[in-house]
Amino acid sequence: MPKLYLIPNTLGEQEDPSLSMGSEVKDALAGLSHFAVENLKQARRYLVRWGLRERIDQSEFIIHNKKTEIESLIEAESVFKSGNSIGMISDAGCPGIADPGNKLVQLAHRLNVEVVPLSGPSSIFLALMASGMNGQAFAFSGYLPREQDQRISAIRDLEKRSKTEGSCQIFMETPYRNMAMLEDLLKYLSPSCKLCTATNLRTADELVISRNVAEWKSSKKPDLNKKPTIFLIQA
Amino acid sequence: MPKLYLIPNTLGEQEDPSLSMGSEVKDALAGLSHFAVENLKQARRYLVRWGLRERIDQSEFIIHNKKTEIESLIEAESVFKSGNSIGMISDAGCPGIADPGNKLVQLAHRLNVEVVPLSGPSSIFLALMASGMNGQAFAFSGYLPREQDQRISAIRDLEKRSKTEGSCQIFMETPYRNMAMLEDLLKYLSPSCKLCTATNLRTADELVISRNVAEWKSSKKPDLNKKPTIFLIQA
Repeated sequence: MPKLYLIPNTLGEQEDPSLSMGSEVKDALAGLSHFAVENLKQARRYLVRWGLRERIDQSEFIIHNKKTEIESLIEAESVFKSGNSIGMISDAGCPGIADPGNKLVQLAHRLNVEVVPLSGPSSIFLALMASGMNGQAFAFSGYLPREQDQRISAIRDLEKRSKTEGSCQIFMETPYRNMAMLEDLLKYLSPSCKLCTATNLRTADELVISRNVAEWKSSKKPDLNKKPTIFLIQA
Repeated sequence: MPKLYLIPNTLGEQEDPSLSMGSEVKDALAGLSHFAVENLKQARRYLVRWGLRERIDQSEFIIHNKKTEIESLIEAESVFKSGNSIGMISDAGCPGIADPGNKLVQLAHRLNVEVVPLSGPSSIFLALMASGMNGQAFAFSGYLPREQDQRISAIRDLEKRSKTEGSCQIFMETPYRNMAMLEDLLKYLSPSCKLCTATNLRTADELVISRNVAEWKSSKKPDLNKKPTIFLIQA
């Protein structure tokens, strides 16, 4: 019976994947001959990093991202129907979490193909653990709006929601706008609101700062420019 | 400099931890002599499962759960102040996510102790990946209220929130009440609402079902009684 394996990737391209993922990930990759990948080059490099260079020539790759979604679903359907399993590999982190992939999972459910999620790094979860915020109630909203007015109202809404629900609110920013986001957060959140930045997770420069806005304002700001960062707030 | 390592555990007690976690977890455990654990017996067994039986007699254990929180924080503070690192081990899954632990992380931030989160299994994330629902916007609410009226209104609220935000709503139930929860969900959600149950994740009996409520109603119900299950809905 064909299966769909959901295969995580490291957060940084430099990392040895066996540091943060168990042997089942390598075993799954080694046993598959069909992969759905965001980017062919990245996926090839990932197989090499697992010591599985031979898989590259022995496998078929379906490019599966926002642009190719429909074609890739037709291709995947015919792979499943011919009885073959597919491994969906993320470019970084977990497939389908702040990443494309859920359409292919939906297809698998529709075809009664078993879906097998494998454990691996997720910047969202690592940030939540490291923040000390509420892991019993939390929400992830992806990117906030770009437009200034809408962004300010989104920031205020998240703080309000956090207060009402007691929940931790998690979001991201395009790395080159991180410093502008940090400034807006310090400007528009209440002084007592807690703010955590989790930057460059899983690299030698990993930096997690978690304090309230008043403390943030009286401390030296970290340089988050162009460094992948997860933002978390709790009112 | 002391550090606080956040150390995940397998979801099932039978599993070889090296299947789902990377070598950095074993390395961290092997290098530590102070642990904050929910349950001493479980933590000992976990070290044995990693092949680290010798750590048991060579280490000090702080019991850190809801009941012991204040004492354990005082104890942890003195460990950090004497320059030692602590590994916080979850009983299952990731420390601080649907699990105690965030107070100890807050203490570390207050003392400027570096917090190092390690990757491992989380039933919430595995369920979200496997559901095919929206991993770009999602929320976890823990347990819904027990009382019937409140529970029904919570179910309706979650569906409404999912519709407004386009988000996936994730929650849990005490395993012996899973079937009652499933009945309530099928009764009070709209026929077009998607419902996913992710049961016994990371065991041989892993079962993920993802379909809309109308399809659920016309299919044979799975037996979820006393089986750890994550529920996910998307309107």
